[in-house]
Amino acid sequence: RRLLPLSLGLFQGVLLLFFTFFVTYNEPSAQAEDVNSVANRIHGIFPFFQDIQVMLVVGLGLLLTFLPRYRLSALTHNFLLLNFSTQWALVLQGLIHHLHHGHIHLDLHNLLTAEFAAVTVLISVGAVLGTTSLCQLLIVAVCEVPVYLASEWVIVSHLGVLDVGGTITIHIFSCYFGLGVSKGLFGAMQRPVHPKESPTPCSDLMSLVGTLILWVFWPSFVAILCQPGDVQHRAILNTFLAMSTSAVTTVVASSLLEKDGKLSPGHLQNGSLAGGVAIGAVADMAMPPVAALALGSLSAVVCVLGFKFVTPILARKLMLQDQCGIHNLHGLPGILGALASTVAILAVSEDTSMSQTSPTGVNASNLEEGQWGEHRVGKKALCQVAGLAVAMGGSLLAGLLAGATLRLPCLARPPLHLCFEDSLQFEIQDQAEDPELCGTAEERALALKE
Amino acid sequence: RRLLPLSLGLFQGVLLLFFTFFVTYNEPSAQAEDVNSVANRIHGIFPFFQDIQVMLVVGLGLLLTFLPRYRLSALTHNFLLLNFSTQWALVLQGLIHHLHHGHIHLDLHNLLTAEFAAVTVLISVGAVLGTTSLCQLLIVAVCEVPVYLASEWVIVSHLGVLDVGGTITIHIFSCYFGLGVSKGLFGAMQRPVHPKESPTPCSDLMSLVGTLILWVFWPSFVAILCQPGDVQHRAILNTFLAMSTSAVTTVVASSLLEKDGKLSPGHLQNGSLAGGVAIGAVADMAMPPVAALALGSLSAVVCVLGFKFVTPILARKLMLQDQCGIHNLHGLPGILGALASTVAILAVSEDTSMSQTSPTGVNASNLEEGQWGEHRVGKKALCQVAGLAVAMGGSLLAGLLAGATLRLPCLARPPLHLCFEDSLQFEIQDQAEDPELCGTAEERALALKE
Amino acid sequence: RRLLPLSLGLFQGVLLLFFTFFVTYNEPSAQAEDVNSVANRIHGIFPFFQDIQVMLVVGLGLLLTFLPRYRLSALTHNFLLLNFSTQWALVLQGLIHHLHHGHIHLDLHNLLTAEFAAVTVLISVGAVLGTTSLCQLLIVAVCEVPVYLASEWVIVSHLGVLDVGGTITIHIFSCYFGLGVSKGLFGAMQRPVHPKESPTPCSDLMSLVGTLILWVFWPSFVAILCQPGDVQHRAILNTFLAMSTSAVTTVVASSLLEKDGKLSPGHLQNGSLAGGVAIGAVADMAMPPVAALALGSLSAVVCVLGFKFVTPILARKLMLQDQCGIHNLHGLPGILGALASTVAILAVSEDTSMSQTSPTGVNASNLEEGQWGEHRVGKKALCQVAGLAVAMGGSLLAGLLAGATLRLPCLARPPLHLCFEDSLQFEIQDQAEDPELCGTAEERALALKE
Repeated sequence: RRLLPLSLGLFQGVLLLFFTFFVTYNEPSAQAEDVNSVANRIHGIFPFFQDIQVMLVVGLGLLLTFLPRYRLSALTHNFLLLNFSTQWALVLQGLIHHLHHGHIHLDLHNLLTAEFAAVTVLISVGAVLGTTSLCQLLIVAVCEVPVYLASEWVIVSHLGVLDVGGTITIHIFSCYFGLGVSKGLFGAMQRPVHPKESPTPCSDLMSLVGTLILWVFWPSFVAILCQPGDVQHRAILNTFLAMSTSAVTTVVASSLLEKDGKLSPGHLQNGSLAGGVAIGAVADMAMPPVAALALGSLSAVVCVLGFKFVTPILARKLMLQDQCGIHNLHGLPGILGALASTVAILAVSEDTSMSQTSPTGVNASNLEEGQWGEHRVGKKALCQVAGLAVAMGGSLLAGLLAGATLRLPCLARPPLHLCFEDSLQFEIQDQAEDPELCGTAEERALALKE
Repeated sequence: RRLLPLSLGLFQGVLLLFFTFFVTYNEPSAQAEDVNSVANRIHGIFPFFQDIQVMLVVGLGLLLTFLPRYRLSALTHNFLLLNFSTQWALVLQGLIHHLHHGHIHLDLHNLLTAEFAAVTVLISVGAVLGTTSLCQLLIVAVCEVPVYLASEWVIVSHLGVLDVGGTITIHIFSCYFGLGVSKGLFGAMQRPVHPKESPTPCSDLMSLVGTLILWVFWPSFVAILCQPGDVQHRAILNTFLAMSTSAVTTVVASSLLEKDGKLSPGHLQNGSLAGGVAIGAVADMAMPPVAALALGSLSAVVCVLGFKFVTPILARKLMLQDQCGIHNLHGLPGILGALASTVAILAVSEDTSMSQTSPTGVNASNLEEGQWGEHRVGKKALCQVAGLAVAMGGSLLAGLLAGATLRLPCLARPPLHLCFEDSLQFEIQDQAEDPELCGTAEERALALKE
Repeated sequence: RRLLPLSLGLFQGVLLLFFTFFVTYNEPSAQAEDVNSVANRIHGIFPFFQDIQVMLVVGLGLLLTFLPRYRLSALTHNFLLLNFSTQWALVLQGLIHHLHHGHIHLDLHNLLTAEFAAVTVLISVGAVLGTTSLCQLLIVAVCEVPVYLASEWVIVSHLGVLDVGGTITIHIFSCYFGLGVSKGLFGAMQRPVHPKESPTPCSDLMSLVGTLILWVFWPSFVAILCQPGDVQHRAILNTFLAMSTSAVTTVVASSLLEKDGKLSPGHLQNGSLAGGVAIGAVADMAMPPVAALALGSLSAVVCVLGFKFVTPILARKLMLQDQCGIHNLHGLPGILGALASTVAILAVSEDTSMSQTSPTGVNASNLEEGQWGEHRVGKKALCQVAGLAVAMGGSLLAGLLAGATLRLPCLARPPLHLCFEDSLQFEIQDQAEDPELCGTAEERALALKE
């Protein structure tokens, strides 16, 4: 019982020590000119940063509140994991940097990359939402962040994969890591579906509000690391277009698949965001707007089909539990996006080699020469596929190991009757007293009679 | 039953085709200087744009959740209509542009004007909230967007009406269009007030949160199209002042009109925003701050009086259903704002002709000469009134036609017992199972005994 | 019953009169160069301003909704008090300015300082949440704003206290003012704890959402008045780091103090924000990042200990009611932050006098000479302590007086059975009808049988 606070407290101590010795801020810029440019940079990036904070803390937190008796826990775990993982990523990033360059200068950009590492944890734990203790989730975070940093280094720095919005490095990675954890933890165990797992209209509503918040701010998430100017502008527009068709297509797909043409709240909560997941790998490329529309539409279809067919098959055939359906929101649309990026690289280079003088479309920071040879383009496209494979394979493997670690006897799994229950983690008022407070006159009358 | 997904799917196909052939992004700007200025422009407009997205998706969506059993539907319909109407407006705008100028270059500004067209749809359907099917709402969107584009062209481009915040072009237009739809659809039919139409404290709370989100971001909505600098600064301040007195005055008015000096949640939800509706037409004009305060105060009074007296009269005399009270929030304060703009033009020009050298106050983009003649000022003021008349008359007529279209037998109206019910549109868990999940121990005991 | 609307209405009239005669906007800037710099300034400050608006209107409002039957009132009172107090602060600030400089030019900066005055009111009334009428709260606002303006003048302008994030001037001041009001109003009266005061899981959830919104935007609150550039950058980072460790440490502390290692929602709702309160006084100083981490951690511990031990002692020994625990969130972490600022000034100056040429770290706007003497540094540090004493003593005294005023017979306190009840202030549907509308099938069946 004391394991959780003591280990968390210990970690805070380590964090303090690490910061004491290794981390400082940049020296203040001395010249007046510098001051202006620093101010401009902050004013350029800070609104994006705040948007992302809202997404992760409020939007994602609310999205996870669809389990009616587990809402406080979902929101709190998300919040705590975000902070813990960001700090953990700062330490690890700092260590790596320290070994190469000495002292670490903290700035908003470092913070942001640490938060991206934390995002992978938040996505992954969706697979085991409600069936794990907070202690277990923290172990997942401890394992996942270093694996993410390694995988991100291989994919982006080594393979040179283009992925401005994190489709491959964040979404696919975290999805398969999470599925690995779920498999590693539960093995072939089958759990009867508990009635507590069904959302109520009220919990569905809160979750949908979370979706809408994520939907609104997603363009900031994709575009924050783009170079300011036309490229960023294009990334914003592409993301908007993809998410807009995603939302409409989700309604179409859900309505066609559900009986009587009704809509499933779960489809809406996830499908509306699928376009944002898929567009990440191609948002800054010089492709026509119609490609963003098509990708958004397609990914919504894939996501809804995933909920309808893939999740049940995985559950039946592989005994794989995926509580939030992360495979449908992050896995399938992510793969779609990664493949689209391969196609886009091939198509764009063909375009540019035929008609234009400089292929500024594809992420300019990765280009040194003005013109790519055929050979380079093919290699570039192959790299995207290789990145996809690394993200999927590496994360699945690491996730399985992490999941197996969670079986350690010192990390007790919550008993079945406390799964999906806030009372596992929270001091809450006995709900039997509720009628006195919140209930209707009718209920109170009933309560009194007994 | 399959009509909705098939027609929506068809529309997505048309959208893809249209974008394939006609829409591209701007070419990347080649010079370093350009890059900087593009970046500055994006960083200047993007936070405003995101604010407006939050308003429309989250704020307006929540505002509509005051019907306790229709909350999922209200939020979803609002979200879907926003996306559908924006796409539809992009297509129509694009077609018009294409006929004149050839290829269409998409940017954030185009997107924004398309969203403004979508806003009119979101406002209009408030009049028939809960009593129409999603299919019918989409037909409303299909009809309203082209009428809006035509009306906006007449009012702004042809008559030269000054209306930076959309008081006339958006609020008044959409209000009377919505009332027309309601009248055209329901005719003289009278529906007994259903108990499901009464908000509960919980649904009132959610709706009030929506109001507060709208209230906070309203200055962004009004000021986004102003030219950066002093004019935008003034528009922000004017809107803030108007909304602030609006909020306080609503409490005064509601408390005076309700029995025992209590407050009506409905008054607060709407009256607090009335100032924002009214200020739109004058926010960028060179009027003293006190005018914004007075206008905000007055429009809140008008809005609360509207709820108390005008809506019941309209319902009784004209058999007009207005579920959300859009006439009180968008109609009456909008008319007030339009009249205020006429007065402001007359007053400002008098001021400036007496004391100043250049009347930079009135929206500078509409002025070519330094000084207006008496004649021009009068004409200018008349134009505002003409714009008001066009917006009201045109939209009412078009709305009546659109409403009549909704009576087509293929567009079945929801049966009475499914009005104001999420279960019309959503696969939701049978609520009879709720006590098991969400209810109190007391309820569960009761449920077991039976 | 008519007292509230009439006095509020009267105030709106005074506001209009005052603005008519004394307030204008700045003249439009004539040169093109100016326009650009004004635009840049607006685009730099406006996103921060909007963030703060969201914090105060939505975040703080939701944080106060933890009383399950008082949620509409909490949200509305917060909203109304914010607007009323901002207007009142504008009038008072304007009067003071007018006496010295003549005409008042309103801009975003004025508005912001007026809002800061309003924040103190919003914090203070937390101490008496649910046990006071709206009329009484408005009197608190009327009393508190001028005292705040005086206290802020003494602390910042006269003593030269460094307090960029309002730790001393806002948080400590408003906390002790609020406690004074509570003591002055209730004296030694003891009220039995009412079951309505216990949060339900649902009201705890809404309140936690409010906390998260405040948590996300807190860096904007602290950094908005910093000079753009490195100093603002540092303030943002320091605040982020402090709040991040605050969140994690709250979980540690709460889990160690509650039985079975569970978490208390109340601790999370407040402790996560304690770091933001404490960091305000030092956020812009040239201290190493580890100091922000330590301060955040420490203030969370202090806050949780306050809830566990200090509040019960104050209630028992001093008969002091503190409904929201403002002493734990704003008082104790505030004192910690003020002391930290003293230490930071001593430490920074030692650092800089030994190794650097210019102590640009400490808020540069307060420095004229390049190097401080030992003497000056000691005096500077003393000033911080003096500022703390002024903020605590002055506000406590003024609060006691204000609280005593609230006992006036014309300001009837709500009767005990209407405390913590929305029905005191709102026209709400009789909740006995709820089962018909919102309840489950089970309940409806039960209701029918009787």
